[in-house]
Amino acid sequence: MPSPHALALDELHGSLSDPVLDAMNFLNEVVGRFPQAISFAPGRPTEGDFEPEDLARHLHTYTSHLEETLGWSRDQVRTQLFQYGRTNGIIHELIARTVANDEGIEVPPEAVVVTTGCQEAMLLILRALFAAPEDTLLVSSPCYVGITGVARLLGIRVRPVPEGPAGPDPEAVSAAVRAAREAGERVRAFYVVPDFANPSGTSMSLPDRERLLRVAEEEDLLVLEDDPYGFFVRTGSARPTLKALDTGRRVVHLGSFAKTALPGARVGYVIADQEVIGPGGRRSLLADELSKIKSMTTVNTSAVSQAVIGGLLIESDCRLREANAGAIAYYRTNMDTLLDELERHFPAERRAELGISWNRPDGGFFAVVTVPFAADHKALELSARTYGVLWTPMSDFHLDGGGTHQLRLSCSAQSPESITEGMARLAAFITAQSTGTAA
Amino acid sequence: MPSPHALALDELHGSLSDPVLDAMNFLNEVVGRFPQAISFAPGRPTEGDFEPEDLARHLHTYTSHLEETLGWSRDQVRTQLFQYGRTNGIIHELIARTVANDEGIEVPPEAVVVTTGCQEAMLLILRALFAAPEDTLLVSSPCYVGITGVARLLGIRVRPVPEGPAGPDPEAVSAAVRAAREAGERVRAFYVVPDFANPSGTSMSLPDRERLLRVAEEEDLLVLEDDPYGFFVRTGSARPTLKALDTGRRVVHLGSFAKTALPGARVGYVIADQEVIGPGGRRSLLADELSKIKSMTTVNTSAVSQAVIGGLLIESDCRLREANAGAIAYYRTNMDTLLDELERHFPAERRAELGISWNRPDGGFFAVVTVPFAADHKALELSARTYGVLWTPMSDFHLDGGGTHQLRLSCSAQSPESITEGMARLAAFITAQSTGTAA
Repeated sequence: MPSPHALALDELHGSLSDPVLDAMNFLNEVVGRFPQAISFAPGRPTEGDFEPEDLARHLHTYTSHLEETLGWSRDQVRTQLFQYGRTNGIIHELIARTVANDEGIEVPPEAVVVTTGCQEAMLLILRALFAAPEDTLLVSSPCYVGITGVARLLGIRVRPVPEGPAGPDPEAVSAAVRAAREAGERVRAFYVVPDFANPSGTSMSLPDRERLLRVAEEEDLLVLEDDPYGFFVRTGSARPTLKALDTGRRVVHLGSFAKTALPGARVGYVIADQEVIGPGGRRSLLADELSKIKSMTTVNTSAVSQAVIGGLLIESDCRLREANAGAIAYYRTNMDTLLDELERHFPAERRAELGISWNRPDGGFFAVVTVPFAADHKALELSARTYGVLWTPMSDFHLDGGGTHQLRLSCSAQSPESITEGMARLAAFITAQSTGTAA
Repeated sequence: MPSPHALALDELHGSLSDPVLDAMNFLNEVVGRFPQAISFAPGRPTEGDFEPEDLARHLHTYTSHLEETLGWSRDQVRTQLFQYGRTNGIIHELIARTVANDEGIEVPPEAVVVTTGCQEAMLLILRALFAAPEDTLLVSSPCYVGITGVARLLGIRVRPVPEGPAGPDPEAVSAAVRAAREAGERVRAFYVVPDFANPSGTSMSLPDRERLLRVAEEEDLLVLEDDPYGFFVRTGSARPTLKALDTGRRVVHLGSFAKTALPGARVGYVIADQEVIGPGGRRSLLADELSKIKSMTTVNTSAVSQAVIGGLLIESDCRLREANAGAIAYYRTNMDTLLDELERHFPAERRAELGISWNRPDGGFFAVVTVPFAADHKALELSARTYGVLWTPMSDFHLDGGGTHQLRLSCSAQSPESITEGMARLAAFITAQSTGTAA
């Protein structure tokens, strides 16, 4: 009998030894080791008033819609739910109607690819767009690890564009494209979360959105707009998405139902209404090209999951923003509470004295606190063990060595009461670290 | 206002211009254009007695299992279904129990990664194993396009190993490894469907399975065993899977519930119980390494889909083979009918005269007919338009230019009556083409 075969990690793909993955594993492991700690770490949504029985209702709503509204036969409904189906999804029309109602995004349903969460959408679009060794992806930095992770899997070069307090600066994007060109690279796309970014909480102004679209035109690149948090406005009113402003088909819009409906369904989508010109001038939609890749990643998005989300969209009359009124209020209260508590624990004079500051996001799940000490994994472990509070080191989101003295706080997964208690613990931790007081 | 941006196909990733993808698109397009034709093309499973209402029952079975058998609280159940969850899945224990009962595969539940269909399982394992430019994948040829498609997406070199009438020959695998080594390549893995292969219908004998495992040991490679059809035995009894015979942890087993439960759920799995040795001798399971990649492809497999499959497994007491007794009988009858009708239309003397032959698979969905004319896309179109019958050109599954005079017939998606009628049409088509008779 042979001895059991073992593999060497350093002979497996390099992405498996990537420091970002190690960082994410460390975070998960710390969260798991301190279950009693109050956690401002995960960006997971509220469960609201979700009950498991809702799933059966959503399914029934969807099948009734097929039978009663669309006049489908029982056999057709059965095949729709049971079989392999259309690669680009079965609820694309409902999604197209929803983004028209909620965002003013007007695209043909055929431009919508339904994906296994927004993560698969990133995988599809990066694989399609990046072909040659000189192709480069720009990302707003600090950056969501989902996009840099896919780039790592596919061996795609990434250049960070440092963002300012109001999100990415279009002129900096333009400068990065030129710098890449001088280095012999070709920038294919720029990835950005324009509303309440993960991890920084920043948002782009309307003029900056318009300037970014002009830069995309001038420099001949696509903008990959990721928009999971856009509904969750805290102050002011919602700004138009880049896709809603996109008259030149420069924007590929990545969407998710994880925050606005049901993370457990794993349904996201990508809107890719660009034309692709093939041999002999044959034209297709970029969405059609993405379907070729999807047939090699997951074949179909679960029909069961799509039926659940489809039912939920029908129940909300394809107006998901209105259906999220409760969640919007919930996150607003949570972020207000978080910022108020920071203010209460660190009033102006005190924070100036200690060297502490934070941003005040207009919405979303995340805020960033800057501290006078290294907010690293060691500090996180101390915070968890001694103070019973968890957060995420911002340095884990930087590709260029930044964020070493910053914490990301997520307000999405705690009640206001729990936020208040957690912020008291965090204030004790930050104060002790900032003043050199032993815990 | 800028003119709408368009992209050039030849600047997108090469996989989008791959002839295999074009072939698949052509097939789908032909199937769509001739909806009245009897189709022996798709490998889709029977819908059996599936009803949409079953989904709600399976969900309820699963949540009751959590609450009543495992004693979970309502809150825990809610979080399990609603939230982001364990990357490697939530029904891994049920799957481990099922493969132990059905296949005699004994692995810890932690070695099971639940995936978005078997397609994602292929993506994960290829990405993990293939790191260096010299790494090569061997595939049994003709080959399922799902695996070669993933290899294309990831830029992995593939070498075909031509199979014989009894599936791949272990000595040919060994020779291919040596040939690759002489060319400066390193073979990391060999992909094979040992039971009732798609597309050829061949199966490996027990001695060949044991020899293949010895070759894997001698040549230091992994065997990627894909087993979607193993239950569907027509003659003789089921043979042990390679994984059940694997005493040296040389086999990574790819599984699917698409044929044995519900394609629309998109739930598959990979069993990867190999140890991986990292820096400082730190040990992990290959399954744990795959989870790092999964976090960058789909994050989680839909919890809703997993709950549906979980409920179905619980209802069958984790004995899916027994639960498939009806399906097994159905496919047996279908394949028998298909082979009987071929025999009836082309008795020995007639087929010798025309130059026609076919194999007699021991089970599964697929049989191959060899004809004296080119069974290409043009012939398929003629067959569909004039004779009302569809099939798949075997050349689409060959990487090395073979199969030009062969048709793949799938018996899975038609009733016996429909097979009888379809075979009459096919016989007319084949006869006319073989004798040069105008249609």
